[in-house]
Amino acid sequence: MNSNRNDNNLDAPEVVILRLPQYVRALGALLDRHVHVVSSAQLGDHLQMTPAQIRKDLSYFGRFGKQGRGYPVKYLLTELRQVLGLDDKWNTILVGVGRLGTAIIEYPGFTPEGFNIVAAFDSDTNQIGSSVGSLTIQGLSDLSLTIRNLNVSIAIVAVPARHAQVVIDSLVEYGIRAVLNYAPIGAQVPDHVKIRNVDPIISLQSMSYYLKQSKL
Amino acid sequence: MNSNRNDNNLDAPEVVILRLPQYVRALGALLDRHVHVVSSAQLGDHLQMTPAQIRKDLSYFGRFGKQGRGYPVKYLLTELRQVLGLDDKWNTILVGVGRLGTAIIEYPGFTPEGFNIVAAFDSDTNQIGSSVGSLTIQGLSDLSLTIRNLNVSIAIVAVPARHAQVVIDSLVEYGIRAVLNYAPIGAQVPDHVKIRNVDPIISLQSMSYYLKQSKL
Repeated sequence: MNSNRNDNNLDAPEVVILRLPQYVRALGALLDRHVHVVSSAQLGDHLQMTPAQIRKDLSYFGRFGKQGRGYPVKYLLTELRQVLGLDDKWNTILVGVGRLGTAIIEYPGFTPEGFNIVAAFDSDTNQIGSSVGSLTIQGLSDLSLTIRNLNVSIAIVAVPARHAQVVIDSLVEYGIRAVLNYAPIGAQVPDHVKIRNVDPIISLQSMSYYLKQSKL
Repeated sequence: MNSNRNDNNLDAPEVVILRLPQYVRALGALLDRHVHVVSSAQLGDHLQMTPAQIRKDLSYFGRFGKQGRGYPVKYLLTELRQVLGLDDKWNTILVGVGRLGTAIIEYPGFTPEGFNIVAAFDSDTNQIGSSVGSLTIQGLSDLSLTIRNLNVSIAIVAVPARHAQVVIDSLVEYGIRAVLNYAPIGAQVPDHVKIRNVDPIISLQSMSYYLKQSKL
């Protein structure tokens, strides 16, 4: 622990941490528009939250504004980026180089945000050794060594649903502590590992409820 | 309103609705494994929730189990699918047929879940008229008429970030009530419209916090 701020961080509930990237994005958009000070009410409008929620969320990470004078956009953005580790580089691997995996490797949005895909893996022996972008596809037997040698902490999983849990179990065993899972399963990980699911079907299903309600 | 169950539904908070698709998926997996009765503790293990949370969530939608005897898997699955409108067909359009949009059209997972992509749109005049899968790409000027004629309620947005809010505003104006947004922006919609974001960067950013914490 190297500052009071970081001690405080430990108290922040996960639901607040999940919102912080949205703050970072909103503050970045404000800065692009040369807005230098923002009130909790204005920030709340952007994020569809109440000013009180905004103030409470931010209070976990320090005192960023003076009562009645709003938050300094650039300072708050810099601090939140640091809290989230967004100025660090995170070596990331991809497992599963099918159509989706290929699109993920070719997506230009990860690297500028500090998430470098440094290796790609597939179980298909026909694919191993071939290139996608600047990467050469490796077999799953290389996972353990690559994760250790390249100091990888994040894995993106884009394998078919039936293989996903086994692959994730291996990744956790080899020391991965954060999984971005594209397979449409509710994968299980131990408490010390974080997982987020990219799952358009689940998202659609949580909206059809409201469409159906309004038809009744 | 055609039953007591639906009256109760109106009280369910959005956070519960967001979890229901996870229940549906977990129950489907249990049924595939020929599990016919499940306790709230077992279901909690699958969903990484407490038994008390499970019981409370489900109580919004009816009485599904007898105290101490567990939930009948098939019956609960059928009921929750109906609550979520998953047995209905929802005509869906895609706006933005770049690399991502093409992958979305070609993804085989939407149609079996009742989300039929019935039309695709792009602003690029070079693309209009060409085919992707079984669809012919239309211009944005066709949006209004297609949404009305095909009774479309859901739009998937896969346009570049700088165009996304304008596209979403038009969709809302033309009667769309649910948006699945792949553009990396915090898009705004009025209260009567639902929006879900598919955003791998935001997901990664909410995990790097924990990776950084454990390095301190």
